[in-house]
Amino acid sequence: MNVELLDSMGDDLAIVNAARVSFGKESVWMYDGGMKVLKAGDEGLICYLMRERHGTPFEMVQFKFRIQVPIGVAREWQRHRIGSFNEVSTRYVEMQPDFYHPSTDAIRAQIGKPGHYQMVAIEDPFEQQDILQQFDMAYSESFAAYQALLERGVAKELARNVLPLGLLTEFIWSVNLRSLFNFLNLRTAPNALLEIRLAAEQVEALAVSIAPVAFAAFNEYGRKAP
Amino acid sequence: MNVELLDSMGDDLAIVNAARVSFGKESVWMYDGGMKVLKAGDEGLICYLMRERHGTPFEMVQFKFRIQVPIGVAREWQRHRIGSFNEVSTRYVEMQPDFYHPSTDAIRAQIGKPGHYQMVAIEDPFEQQDILQQFDMAYSESFAAYQALLERGVAKELARNVLPLGLLTEFIWSVNLRSLFNFLNLRTAPNALLEIRLAAEQVEALAVSIAPVAFAAFNEYGRKAP
Amino acid sequence: MNVELLDSMGDDLAIVNAARVSFGKESVWMYDGGMKVLKAGDEGLICYLMRERHGTPFEMVQFKFRIQVPIGVAREWQRHRIGSFNEVSTRYVEMQPDFYHPSTDAIRAQIGKPGHYQMVAIEDPFEQQDILQQFDMAYSESFAAYQALLERGVAKELARNVLPLGLLTEFIWSVNLRSLFNFLNLRTAPNALLEIRLAAEQVEALAVSIAPVAFAAFNEYGRKAP
Amino acid sequence: MNVELLDSMGDDLAIVNAARVSFGKESVWMYDGGMKVLKAGDEGLICYLMRERHGTPFEMVQFKFRIQVPIGVAREWQRHRIGSFNEVSTRYVEMQPDFYHPSTDAIRAQIGKPGHYQMVAIEDPFEQQDILQQFDMAYSESFAAYQALLERGVAKELARNVLPLGLLTEFIWSVNLRSLFNFLNLRTAPNALLEIRLAAEQVEALAVSIAPVAFAAFNEYGRKAP
Repeated sequence: MNVELLDSMGDDLAIVNAARVSFGKESVWMYDGGMKVLKAGDEGLICYLMRERHGTPFEMVQFKFRIQVPIGVAREWQRHRIGSFNEVSTRYVEMQPDFYHPSTDAIRAQIGKPGHYQMVAIEDPFEQQDILQQFDMAYSESFAAYQALLERGVAKELARNVLPLGLLTEFIWSVNLRSLFNFLNLRTAPNALLEIRLAAEQVEALAVSIAPVAFAAFNEYGRKAP
Repeated sequence: MNVELLDSMGDDLAIVNAARVSFGKESVWMYDGGMKVLKAGDEGLICYLMRERHGTPFEMVQFKFRIQVPIGVAREWQRHRIGSFNEVSTRYVEMQPDFYHPSTDAIRAQIGKPGHYQMVAIEDPFEQQDILQQFDMAYSESFAAYQALLERGVAKELARNVLPLGLLTEFIWSVNLRSLFNFLNLRTAPNALLEIRLAAEQVEALAVSIAPVAFAAFNEYGRKAP
Repeated sequence: MNVELLDSMGDDLAIVNAARVSFGKESVWMYDGGMKVLKAGDEGLICYLMRERHGTPFEMVQFKFRIQVPIGVAREWQRHRIGSFNEVSTRYVEMQPDFYHPSTDAIRAQIGKPGHYQMVAIEDPFEQQDILQQFDMAYSESFAAYQALLERGVAKELARNVLPLGLLTEFIWSVNLRSLFNFLNLRTAPNALLEIRLAAEQVEALAVSIAPVAFAAFNEYGRKAP
Repeated sequence: MNVELLDSMGDDLAIVNAARVSFGKESVWMYDGGMKVLKAGDEGLICYLMRERHGTPFEMVQFKFRIQVPIGVAREWQRHRIGSFNEVSTRYVEMQPDFYHPSTDAIRAQIGKPGHYQMVAIEDPFEQQDILQQFDMAYSESFAAYQALLERGVAKELARNVLPLGLLTEFIWSVNLRSLFNFLNLRTAPNALLEIRLAAEQVEALAVSIAPVAFAAFNEYGRKAP
């Protein structure tokens, strides 16, 4: 799993000035020891926007990421409709045998009932090794079947049906900060799927430096999308 | 693969009256031998809207479908962002061994280069049987691995990584007619993936009776979303 | 100002069954003295979805309204992007002199600073009458100018520039229940514009009977969109 | 009326690489006399994407504009739902008397029936002057009424009801290139409202230099959004 920030547009000041246009105003950076920082009133404005859930100014910051995750994780990710995706095509590309191998920390059992599931680590090292080996074998068998079908001439788009959800896929994601906050709210939550949580945390670590005041406000007011 | 129309809202007259609101007008059904039909002028209006690509009135018709397709097909389907999805969760549900088995017609090779792929049927019955058996075996092995992981207590959300893209999934889809036309334009096209094309054709067969004049106009003007 | 519910699709059970599809389940109505009601477990599920902000099942209920409000209110309304609009066109229609006349309760002064405005009723009846007369005169003068321009042959789309924001407009709005909850959260809030609040309250009064359990949960959990 | 490009993200190469990710590939700029240009194959790819209507890669280019137009034009603009808006608020700001005064070229009559309107210039200079004077007077009267209401203490959000659609407003617009192409297709068309056409042409003139190959393809293939 891997996350890369490819590009971005806008910053904390872009949020401020999108909000200030409502009042017919515009603000500028202040310089503090050569570093550009928001004026105190502008920091306060971002907090106000977050607290009062005036979300549209946060849409003025845009990010573009490259994401590499298992297909099962990509499926959850792409349910987020406010944003753009371009993904490697299993119709056009002969896929490589790159699979998701959980770290030993990530090997877990599920207890409880739907709506109340809890995840419990499987901690016995021998059991962990056995489980990892089972994943390995299953992935290898699936990939061998895929290759055998391709060798017979079966179309990639048909042969892919035997590829597992643990296969790594790659996509480019353009998303604005408001939609990203919603993604992070849901996907870094304790009950989110561990694998998407880990990737979402990488996304957040990369995004925070683009709009640090907005992220501080996001954390201050309960990590809810404004 | 299976498609069911669960509910709908609106019809050809709803499209007409959404358009007529622009002119401050409202129309009604005419009765022809007890059957309600559009007035000639209203049929003409729908053709005009389609031809001139005035798309918003077509958004006033809404459909709700239940769709059962392989995960690989669901992935393409859910890239359509104007609409709503609720899908069976591989985190919460122990999946059943229901897989996509291509019909003999659907067994195909891929020739040509990216952007210019062509699909060619594999017609030798012995080869077809061999290929189908390879799918069967791959599916069985994957499912056995899934069950073995579950038996060890591995969480469903982790064990699912070994499940193949050919596993059938089920989702509910709410979509308006304008977005549906866009879906049908892309997914019933000759170069669309065969499996989504077959499902899209089922969708269209069910939807057409809800708004027959709009579908006639769709066909008349090149099957492009207005 | 006027609001009419023209059509709808789905109900509380549609929400339940959209959520239950995640678990591979389906529920049905119970009959209580001939009236169909949700099972207790299904009511609980709707509360759970609302509380945990699982919003997508609420998208399975769709409404279609006819709305008549001043243009200034329509402008706020149409900033809600998840939904469909068709509106009377001031390019194509010669507008009628139908204007927004505030009730005496709605005549108000604004005190305080941006972000902290408060509205205070202007209660003196003579002052109210004077203000209403000023609106009347302004509307009449604007409309007379509009008519004079039309009489000279000026195109409606150009002449409309003199029409005031208080002119009543009419549109059809298709919106799903999740997006509607977001609209109601923002537009029935105490700090919302009075005129959109009054119209939003009419919308809510009409919608509540379509999905009463969902609305009860909306009220129970702070009237936030899930 | 005024249009300013405030910021952008991405360029022709961003489109190419969003498309190439489907094939698991990535491209780079070529240098021609120190200027960076697309490789011939990448130019061809953009044409292919446009022709075959593979639209998502064009979503990877994002623009942010400041737009100043009459309220009547802003109303059409904001019907475009794929994008973000922040606008000066007539609830919070005391508006200034800045109105749309058509150039003499823009003074026009409307002939024909709905769906078939034609605009015909009113060319008599005396008539033009009279019409402009009528606009001036109507705007002045409306603004005087607005000021009189404010002076009495009436809230800005209530007093604004007398302001005309010809009042200039200002908003910030973030939009991706795919959605922008759709906007330009509709709003630069010969039957678009003249005033939005003029502003849309300014938008296009500013955007073209950010992704010149994409715009060339847009023009080549009928100026339809991919």
